[in-house]
Amino acid sequence: MTVLTDGESHGVRERRFDLDREGRRVPGMLWTPIGGAGPCPLVVLGHGASGNKRQDYVVSMARRLVRHRGYAAAAIDGPVHGDRRGEGPEAGSRAVFLHFAQVWSSDDRMTDEMVADYVATVDAVQSLDAVGEGPVGFWGLSMGTILGLPFVAAEPRMAVAVLGLMGMTGPTRARIEADAPQVSCPVLFLVQWDDDLFARDTAFALFDALGSNDKRLHASVGSHGAVPEEEFVASEGFLAKYLSADPS
Amino acid sequence: MTVLTDGESHGVRERRFDLDREGRRVPGMLWTPIGGAGPCPLVVLGHGASGNKRQDYVVSMARRLVRHRGYAAAAIDGPVHGDRRGEGPEAGSRAVFLHFAQVWSSDDRMTDEMVADYVATVDAVQSLDAVGEGPVGFWGLSMGTILGLPFVAAEPRMAVAVLGLMGMTGPTRARIEADAPQVSCPVLFLVQWDDDLFARDTAFALFDALGSNDKRLHASVGSHGAVPEEEFVASEGFLAKYLSADPS
Repeated sequence: MTVLTDGESHGVRERRFDLDREGRRVPGMLWTPIGGAGPCPLVVLGHGASGNKRQDYVVSMARRLVRHRGYAAAAIDGPVHGDRRGEGPEAGSRAVFLHFAQVWSSDDRMTDEMVADYVATVDAVQSLDAVGEGPVGFWGLSMGTILGLPFVAAEPRMAVAVLGLMGMTGPTRARIEADAPQVSCPVLFLVQWDDDLFARDTAFALFDALGSNDKRLHASVGSHGAVPEEEFVASEGFLAKYLSADPS
Repeated sequence: MTVLTDGESHGVRERRFDLDREGRRVPGMLWTPIGGAGPCPLVVLGHGASGNKRQDYVVSMARRLVRHRGYAAAAIDGPVHGDRRGEGPEAGSRAVFLHFAQVWSSDDRMTDEMVADYVATVDAVQSLDAVGEGPVGFWGLSMGTILGLPFVAAEPRMAVAVLGLMGMTGPTRARIEADAPQVSCPVLFLVQWDDDLFARDTAFALFDALGSNDKRLHASVGSHGAVPEEEFVASEGFLAKYLSADPS
């Protein structure tokens, strides 16, 4: 792990790091309590398509977990996103979205590589004294679920996950169909009732397919991008219920 | 209002009352904080088919609202339920269920009378110093929604409602269809994913039909009767968000 920047703001220490995984650069962010010492729970955050590891809602969720709960939070850029991109003409967000759609449709290794990058991130981050080997959770919606659900299914350290804004559909549907029954940790699954990208019925099918005995679905009115603050609050409470030694 | 019993237990004052509405007896319960003075928020609780105004989850919800939030809570027996029944051979719970099914199918006045009884209950209870004219909420699932949704739709004092375990179906479907768009307060709608009485799709159709702009749906795994503690906690928080002058 190479730490590129290390700063502090309003009670949160924020590190920008790179991992080198088999010659491939994995750009990441780590948020921890200032002066905190591990082991503490770690939540891995997945961003959405055309976003990146420091988009507003990712940073907001991370800071909330650090400040309210004393957890660590980490995020890495998804394929062809954020600092994984060059500085070429495709750097605008619509271009990123289109580029991701192409990779999603054509690159069979995409999911496996992202799962491996997530596992490497947990390993690297937990090796730091400020984090240590505490319980691990995941939070990721939309593309965060496309790439995060297979990670949640594969990672035995996973204690709890928030997934959603995604259905049993898309180019990697077969992979999602195979992995969903392998998810065994408690899950909160978020749905936007009027989702304009993933039809409600496909989201219900994905929720149905999750292997977890302990799962629930929260549906909010509005389009794909209109997840209300209420569900960020619910996400924090749900993660904390399973990650805190003494749940409140 | 005739108060029949008036007792105290663990911080909660519990009154068993009867109302006389056009010669018909309306048997009810009122729970208030011991020593509390109004005005305070009032939550009306609807029980389920074959239950009654003092079944376990109604009393539990009432005591939770009184003890945690300082609210008043009230419940009345539904048609052919609880103290509205005689003491004849039909007094067992299966007989009550079958009797209700008959009334539900055949008595056109059932919904109107229950709405009128609910309104009379709010009037009577709010006339007490211990309650006063604060904001009003409703919580009722299954039969509590069959008879409570029309009350929520008709009652201008209604500030918030928890409904669910019910769909766009049954003998009074036309009434539910007519009233659902008239519901305008914030709603939390509860669904049991594996509901054996009301098919999931009919529940989604009812949620869709609710006129409220501010609504959300929580689905939990399990059968009709298996609503988890988590959703009773969520109900309390949701009611409080809209009933407390200073929401926490």
